[in-house]
Amino acid sequence: MYQNDLILRAAKGETVERVPVWLMRQAGRILPEYRATRSRAKNFIEFVKTPELACEVTVQPVDILGVDAAIIFSDILVIPEAMGLPYQMIEAKGPNFEKTIKEQADIDGLHIADAGDLDYVIQAIRLTKQALNNRVPLIGFAGAPWTLMAYMVEGSGSKTFSQAKKFLYQHPQLAHQLLDKITQSTINYLKGQVAAGADMIQIFDSWAGVLGPDQYREFSLRYISRICDAIEPLAPVTVFAKDAHFALADMAKLNCNTIGLDWTINPQDARIIIGSGKTLQGNADPCMLYADEKTIEAEAKKMITAFGKQRYIANLGHGLYPDTDKNKVKYFVDCIKGM
Amino acid sequence: MYQNDLILRAAKGETVERVPVWLMRQAGRILPEYRATRSRAKNFIEFVKTPELACEVTVQPVDILGVDAAIIFSDILVIPEAMGLPYQMIEAKGPNFEKTIKEQADIDGLHIADAGDLDYVIQAIRLTKQALNNRVPLIGFAGAPWTLMAYMVEGSGSKTFSQAKKFLYQHPQLAHQLLDKITQSTINYLKGQVAAGADMIQIFDSWAGVLGPDQYREFSLRYISRICDAIEPLAPVTVFAKDAHFALADMAKLNCNTIGLDWTINPQDARIIIGSGKTLQGNADPCMLYADEKTIEAEAKKMITAFGKQRYIANLGHGLYPDTDKNKVKYFVDCIKGM
Repeated sequence: MYQNDLILRAAKGETVERVPVWLMRQAGRILPEYRATRSRAKNFIEFVKTPELACEVTVQPVDILGVDAAIIFSDILVIPEAMGLPYQMIEAKGPNFEKTIKEQADIDGLHIADAGDLDYVIQAIRLTKQALNNRVPLIGFAGAPWTLMAYMVEGSGSKTFSQAKKFLYQHPQLAHQLLDKITQSTINYLKGQVAAGADMIQIFDSWAGVLGPDQYREFSLRYISRICDAIEPLAPVTVFAKDAHFALADMAKLNCNTIGLDWTINPQDARIIIGSGKTLQGNADPCMLYADEKTIEAEAKKMITAFGKQRYIANLGHGLYPDTDKNKVKYFVDCIKGM
Repeated sequence: MYQNDLILRAAKGETVERVPVWLMRQAGRILPEYRATRSRAKNFIEFVKTPELACEVTVQPVDILGVDAAIIFSDILVIPEAMGLPYQMIEAKGPNFEKTIKEQADIDGLHIADAGDLDYVIQAIRLTKQALNNRVPLIGFAGAPWTLMAYMVEGSGSKTFSQAKKFLYQHPQLAHQLLDKITQSTINYLKGQVAAGADMIQIFDSWAGVLGPDQYREFSLRYISRICDAIEPLAPVTVFAKDAHFALADMAKLNCNTIGLDWTINPQDARIIIGSGKTLQGNADPCMLYADEKTIEAEAKKMITAFGKQRYIANLGHGLYPDTDKNKVKYFVDCIKGM
């Protein structure tokens, strides 16, 4: 069916001839082609909501970088917006919500979103599937419920998310109500993505690492688990919880195919903790791509040696940083593909 | 010699009757008395540089919260400043350096600081020792060389410190020169602190967690190790490397008495990895102090149960957040002291 289905086979634990590779934020500011498309929308939200533009930037890294998968261009915060909390993306600062979740009434007022509320993403997936024309699989995604809740309570990015965590400590029952509504919305949304053609799904728990092990189990993993149970029968699921080193053993029990790792995790340790039943994805430091080609090649080799060539998807341990040289990124992709 | 020397005995592995407790950033904005003293200086730098004011806020938490140690009020960035890189502390934003380290000439231009360059801290320690009058020991401190370098290259705080990490990847030899100069300065400074009366020393590696395990070993731990070797013969040393979960086994080999832990580390796992030869310090989530008294008491009990009462110093896993209710902080301290 696909000219290149390496990533799907690697996710399912089937034998591959070489390690598949893609990069978080590969559709992004490192590409001049992305910046050109981006400039045709009047702001970030309009960009995300225009399927033709989203499709264009989703396909660009497949053409330019030669990666083994596309990931639909969108934003994790489309779910809070569809639930009734609109946001703005402020240049060089990040997201900002004018209204945040403070009490019961705020949660009661939230709508449980379905794929119809996010039709612009569904349309973008349909267009992208046509444009990709079976060259490589398309990855869909969503934020993990805890990460979305963190923004919905905090109202913006934060180093500590201390206001969102305060909510967990002061209103645990309300937090569970909120997380439940986000989880229901996310399951509806991801089912829609798969129905529209997404071949794999990745869950991003970007703010996993601000929680300790007990809170992570109670307020995050429980909801990720529900999403995996609902989606994994439909498409392979990858869970990437940044800085959740303490949760790897629990994550091994999730009903998902692949676990993403950040660069602070030792690959061999992760394999021992997670066992042989999951594919691992990651985990180069995005800053490594600032190095010279010799170093990049050595680091690529170190990854393949540490993870092995089977049950492994090469990637970074976080999204590409915007000031990365695209030639270095392509060099890294070529190194992995040549090994 | 001291009315209360519990923390010194716990650090050295001697038997204690109860667990000693103090809190990172206990001299800080949670106390109205701190804010009153702070308002007498025209800015943060002047505040840090006025020994009488630094002494006042250092002693306040001993009187008000009843903690088992004082920690000299200062800032880790006094070392870069003494080396020739002045900074400003911008309200609600954090530190900002007008000049940063970019190339060889910038490093050549740095001065190797000694305690004389930081006489205002030395004087603050002397005044504080008099004011404490042997009630509790006084902790001195410095930033770890990597954390100081991160600010000196990046020029400000950052979620990723990607510019400082870029420097490690692009100029590893220059990075080692810079780290060496910072290390020499820090050793001189800490020797001066001990000579002036600091009873224990804590090294803060606040940005340990942005590095992966290999880079952490090469660019951070190596220099922390030199500091421990120079200072541990003079006073017990505590190393607190935030988010350095991957480095605990290496840290167990440092020539220091105590290892600080953040709240993402499971206490029992830490004890197994680090072994019985070190005292552990930490590791409550600062956000836990937003909870009600019942929860705070339960969490305090959980800590004591998990760490045990010997070779343990109760603390948070990060500094107190400024909007914490001081009554909750005192309640937590009292809980620990009553167990």
